[in-house]
Amino acid sequence: MKAFDPNDLRVLPPQAFSREREVRFHDIDAAGIMFYPRIFEYCNDLLVDYLASEGVGVPGVLAARRWAAPLRHVEADYFRPLRFGDRIQVALCRAQVKESAVTLAYRVGRQGEEGAVAVVQTTHVTIDPESFLRCPVPEELSRALQRFI
Amino acid sequence: MKAFDPNDLRVLPPQAFSREREVRFHDIDAAGIMFYPRIFEYCNDLLVDYLASEGVGVPGVLAARRWAAPLRHVEADYFRPLRFGDRIQVALCRAQVKESAVTLAYRVGRQGEEGAVAVVQTTHVTIDPESFLRCPVPEELSRALQRFI
Amino acid sequence: MKAFDPNDLRVLPPQAFSREREVRFHDIDAAGIMFYPRIFEYCNDLLVDYLASEGVGVPGVLAARRWAAPLRHVEADYFRPLRFGDRIQVALCRAQVKESAVTLAYRVGRQGEEGAVAVVQTTHVTIDPESFLRCPVPEELSRALQRFI
Amino acid sequence: MKAFDPNDLRVLPPQAFSREREVRFHDIDAAGIMFYPRIFEYCNDLLVDYLASEGVGVPGVLAARRWAAPLRHVEADYFRPLRFGDRIQVALCRAQVKESAVTLAYRVGRQGEEGAVAVVQTTHVTIDPESFLRCPVPEELSRALQRFI
Repeated sequence: MKAFDPNDLRVLPPQAFSREREVRFHDIDAAGIMFYPRIFEYCNDLLVDYLASEGVGVPGVLAARRWAAPLRHVEADYFRPLRFGDRIQVALCRAQVKESAVTLAYRVGRQGEEGAVAVVQTTHVTIDPESFLRCPVPEELSRALQRFI
Repeated sequence: MKAFDPNDLRVLPPQAFSREREVRFHDIDAAGIMFYPRIFEYCNDLLVDYLASEGVGVPGVLAARRWAAPLRHVEADYFRPLRFGDRIQVALCRAQVKESAVTLAYRVGRQGEEGAVAVVQTTHVTIDPESFLRCPVPEELSRALQRFI
Repeated sequence: MKAFDPNDLRVLPPQAFSREREVRFHDIDAAGIMFYPRIFEYCNDLLVDYLASEGVGVPGVLAARRWAAPLRHVEADYFRPLRFGDRIQVALCRAQVKESAVTLAYRVGRQGEEGAVAVVQTTHVTIDPESFLRCPVPEELSRALQRFI
Repeated sequence: MKAFDPNDLRVLPPQAFSREREVRFHDIDAAGIMFYPRIFEYCNDLLVDYLASEGVGVPGVLAARRWAAPLRHVEADYFRPLRFGDRIQVALCRAQVKESAVTLAYRVGRQGEEGAVAVVQTTHVTIDPESFLRCPVPEELSRALQRFI
């Protein structure tokens, strides 16, 4: 299911869409670093922001039951620990669009640091929310992702 | 909106319904103790368990859109910090049922300790999930809460 | 423990410090609205932002073990449900500083709406993180909160 | 970094250690199914339970700063959506222990269903929590994982 080599995702590409945010007080776990699944929340928040900026409002898509895009596969590679207050840059970097599946690749960096802190890839399948059966990738989604292909 | 005096909730009453659980790795925050809103997750989980034990399956109630019970008021008093791995007892202790509102009181204790670690009270209003307008407290909910009144 | 009347918190005062944010995909619960304890995350995030803007970096305070401010009491009143994608304004509005306790009041509003969606108040006690014993409210914290008193 | 073929993880092996739990009210997202990163919380909770049952108390390990095991790589494959109230079985199934890394494989099933709902694998590196430098996999951890190798 892996679409990208994690090593290819460590460098920020020119077409990336990114947002800065901070590692929050409640993202930390009992080992004193970011609880690792939070990275998927960061990516999910960014995707919602990106799609909104392209005119694809996910809240409206879900409310109208036009389509949904549950996950089929996700993976993350962590290179360095994140701590409370770290200023990070979460970037949507690459996309692969198939018949009824979309794979997105993200890079998380830390302010003032060269290398990536983590890279993530997620494969969504597109479905009809009523039947939960697969549907072709909606035109609005496919178009919004063109710049990352 | 407060229905109970927090001090009256520090002692476990005989009619309490309780479950043991542990403070989890990811309940901890950057200060090294339980992130304080997690206490409401613990109480919410217990309520779902209790109602199921009384034949009121909340998943089914929501799926059938029979009724819903969003929160109108919540409050918690914290007496001692909780740490990763602490074995706690979460107890539903008291209830007050009004026309279209229910207040529930919870106590959290720690294994081997006399006093309460925290007490919580939550006031739900009962609504029709289609209109989001208030409805009388459903008979099945009211009956399930009798032992706490 | 309540320091403010919730009704007095429904109006945004001139000295408020606020940030806009959106209700996220994963803030929603099985009833289709914001899971109610998330409101405390929103307030906590805002407090960290506000203190940083006043030169009080909470990550640094905790790392240096200068002081900590665990919660003693929290409460929230919810007036209207929040849904995925709602644009909200979270505001720190009022403060009360005592010998070793601080109560903060927050208001959450929704873009384009008059009334408050929710109001929150939280009472922190200030402690020495080594001993977990109470200490006087640190000067840096007290000074940062002056505008809300 | 992948140690196991996800397809090999779909069947519950005889040596599995498992616990039943329910998909909670607040595990659901705005699309009405389990928010996908929650699966890692389920696996993490199970690992803590398993290690405790083998005499390796993770809270004590962290408090004594004996060792820590942050994530280097995680991945999950989701085969079917999970909904509020679903009774699931989370199982730790297989392990691979290297010099300073441990890969664990988990399977999540649903009561009364044949196939897996999801499979997860996580690669931890073992470190000295003071220096954050890699250390050999601690003997107590390695021994606890023998049955899964």
